[in-house]
Amino acid sequence: MPVPGPGYSITIRLEAPPSATAAGDIASAVGRVGGVITAFDVVESHADRIVVDVTCNALSANHAKDITDALEALPGVAVRKVSDRTFLVHLGGKLEVSAKVALRNRDDLSRAYTPGVARVCQAIAANPEDARRLTIKRNTVAVVTDGSAVLGLGNLGPAAALPVMEGKAALFKKFAGVDAWPVCLDTQDTEEIIRAVELIAPVYGGINLEDIAAPRCFEIERRLRQKLNIPVFHDDQHGTAIVVVGALRNALRVVGKSIEDCRVVVCGVGAAGSAIIRLLLHKNPADVLAVDVDGIVHNDRPGLDENLGWIAAHTNRDNRSGTLREALVGADVFIGVSAPNLFGAEQVATMAPDPIVFALANPDPEIDPIEAQQHAAVVATGRSDFPNQINNVLAFPGFFRGLLDAHAHSITDAMLLAAANAIADVVDGERLNASFVVPSVFDSAVAPAVAEAVRRAAERDPGA
Amino acid sequence: MPVPGPGYSITIRLEAPPSATAAGDIASAVGRVGGVITAFDVVESHADRIVVDVTCNALSANHAKDITDALEALPGVAVRKVSDRTFLVHLGGKLEVSAKVALRNRDDLSRAYTPGVARVCQAIAANPEDARRLTIKRNTVAVVTDGSAVLGLGNLGPAAALPVMEGKAALFKKFAGVDAWPVCLDTQDTEEIIRAVELIAPVYGGINLEDIAAPRCFEIERRLRQKLNIPVFHDDQHGTAIVVVGALRNALRVVGKSIEDCRVVVCGVGAAGSAIIRLLLHKNPADVLAVDVDGIVHNDRPGLDENLGWIAAHTNRDNRSGTLREALVGADVFIGVSAPNLFGAEQVATMAPDPIVFALANPDPEIDPIEAQQHAAVVATGRSDFPNQINNVLAFPGFFRGLLDAHAHSITDAMLLAAANAIADVVDGERLNASFVVPSVFDSAVAPAVAEAVRRAAERDPGA
Repeated sequence: MPVPGPGYSITIRLEAPPSATAAGDIASAVGRVGGVITAFDVVESHADRIVVDVTCNALSANHAKDITDALEALPGVAVRKVSDRTFLVHLGGKLEVSAKVALRNRDDLSRAYTPGVARVCQAIAANPEDARRLTIKRNTVAVVTDGSAVLGLGNLGPAAALPVMEGKAALFKKFAGVDAWPVCLDTQDTEEIIRAVELIAPVYGGINLEDIAAPRCFEIERRLRQKLNIPVFHDDQHGTAIVVVGALRNALRVVGKSIEDCRVVVCGVGAAGSAIIRLLLHKNPADVLAVDVDGIVHNDRPGLDENLGWIAAHTNRDNRSGTLREALVGADVFIGVSAPNLFGAEQVATMAPDPIVFALANPDPEIDPIEAQQHAAVVATGRSDFPNQINNVLAFPGFFRGLLDAHAHSITDAMLLAAANAIADVVDGERLNASFVVPSVFDSAVAPAVAEAVRRAAERDPGA
Repeated sequence: MPVPGPGYSITIRLEAPPSATAAGDIASAVGRVGGVITAFDVVESHADRIVVDVTCNALSANHAKDITDALEALPGVAVRKVSDRTFLVHLGGKLEVSAKVALRNRDDLSRAYTPGVARVCQAIAANPEDARRLTIKRNTVAVVTDGSAVLGLGNLGPAAALPVMEGKAALFKKFAGVDAWPVCLDTQDTEEIIRAVELIAPVYGGINLEDIAAPRCFEIERRLRQKLNIPVFHDDQHGTAIVVVGALRNALRVVGKSIEDCRVVVCGVGAAGSAIIRLLLHKNPADVLAVDVDGIVHNDRPGLDENLGWIAAHTNRDNRSGTLREALVGADVFIGVSAPNLFGAEQVATMAPDPIVFALANPDPEIDPIEAQQHAAVVATGRSDFPNQINNVLAFPGFFRGLLDAHAHSITDAMLLAAANAIADVVDGERLNASFVVPSVFDSAVAPAVAEAVRRAAERDPGA
């Protein structure tokens, strides 16, 4: 049964009798309906009553209603107001734009704005590369979406995607000091998206594509990489691939296998799955089987698009066909970025000895991780309530920090692999075990390590 | 002769003998070549020498070189390094993006980002107007340019325009708490600019068009106002018009004239001049004569475009033709937004008694303001080194503050006039005189007064 988490947290302001048992009664009432109280603040105290803010985690809107009803039913208790704490966090937006320069007096104004700024403009017009020195381009990344694949929610459109992009920008700043700005485009036409990003590019030192549906995301990224002289990174592809390949490196250390000897099943061949496969192939696995809703991807399957065609040509050495369950038999590694509840413990039992299971579908994995643990040597998910959370925040902030510091104009696979290795290597030998193949998302050593690895990879490749 | 100002300020690090006369010698040397020392900081002191940072204002790059040479020529003095303080202010850009929410731990992350953010996205998808409550749209304005008319410098392109847009965004925040973001578009095609702004609009609560050349700026603004449900404001037009009309109101108070009795000459019929005329006509002046390089605009002049045709139809009651000098004879008010040094004191002498001269061309006005003062009762310029600086910063921050606070969807002429009156009324009767017809750009009362006036005008017009 799921545990109420802080993603759905409510604060209930209520009046209660000033009796010694009030707090206990309230806690019992909330507990009886499965709520978890995280804070109990008396905001007013009178001779005849107290006013209390009860903060608790809930599972859903219905569950929050159950909790409120349980409190209302207590003798002498009256609920005044229920605030959803998640909505309170988002109220008014999560970002602000601040000036880094003083504007206290006329001298400040003359330098930062007119007339002084005119000379800075002329310097950039004469030498465009100076924009990386004299403007925000040096440290600024656009987080671009069309709102077509927002989290696991699907096509919500650009306005509804904005809270995610704001959160992403906040993470960029928190973990790597990168100034990131949301660009939510009011179109889902591939050509219009490409042109719009091209048009806004002068302000930015890098482009992070986000939550754009496959297969359009592949063409958008490819074409923008050709057109722009700043790096273009689709986080749903490459961010995920970096963390997965890094985590797999450590998981293989735990089970004592070499990737060259492993057969890897990748389930889900959208943005994330395709990028995982492409990055993984640089590591020379014994074989990779790509699986989607139509089964194993192979050369003779009809209707393969450009992406699947490439994957069929570069995976599946024996050109096998079949189902996911058939693919799993004898496999060393399962990596799922697809859909919930596709298989159970009995399928894990058919895999090779000490199998590795990365069940990353959100919010519900391809297999319940508790069930997977019955036979798997290492289990990872995308969830924060299990060990080994595969979270892109381990990759993208440090990755862009490195790109910006290197003044990189493009992204290479060598950079992606360097970032994956850097994440893996943050977990030193002493801490490495089956429950700790990736560092915590709050480990402040990760982003600098990734940035350093990316910067060095960029320096080794002067074309980047 | 122009006075060296802080817009060109250099810091010269030099070694000098530790003698008692060193400071005096340095000051004399700088003064002899016309430099103004604003700071003298000893950064190192040794038995045989001192290291000093001499900061001084200069007129130009050549003048800075003269000052450096004069210092080098002093016995025992060696210049180590010359820093341009204006460039130092711009180094690394002038803006940063900060998170307004904490991301200290897992609970914070669960609310601000996944999984909690999913419910916020779904709320906006269900009710798009919630974006103004739950995202940065509530307080965020795009400062959009194509770089085609940067300051008085002309067509420098989008990258070179960025320092100005950053400065503008800094002013938005400083004076009105508005989060503004630079959008420098890599195109100068009218259709592409319109479409790009439409595509990026979901993130913003308003659009500030900036430094886009006429006549394309008119069509871009008009079409965007039709397409978008957020206010669109071309600052070079309406910002200037607001401040000019506000300043004129006070100037007329000083000379004791009523606008209904005045003939106004507006010289320059680009973005600013056209908007000034359109706003001024709401005040019912006795007559307006628009003048450009081809002389007075009149109905029979060949080759009038749409904008000039409208102006010809709505000004110049007697359909006069002629030169600027002819237009000035008997005029009560001159407003110039055109080119430097077009006329002299002798032309001001031909105007009506107590003439008002707003010579706003930047950096050099239509007439030297000292010369204009010989005959004019009130003189205003765009320059910061004379009284009555007509500066858009008096208008745009408060104007957008009011629009955002009112959740306005469009801009009306009533709002523009309300803002003009609000700026004028900040100067109370006791302070009003010929040298103080507009408040200081640093007067913190201006933006709130403008915001309040705009908000009220919006509330009076529920369609806005």
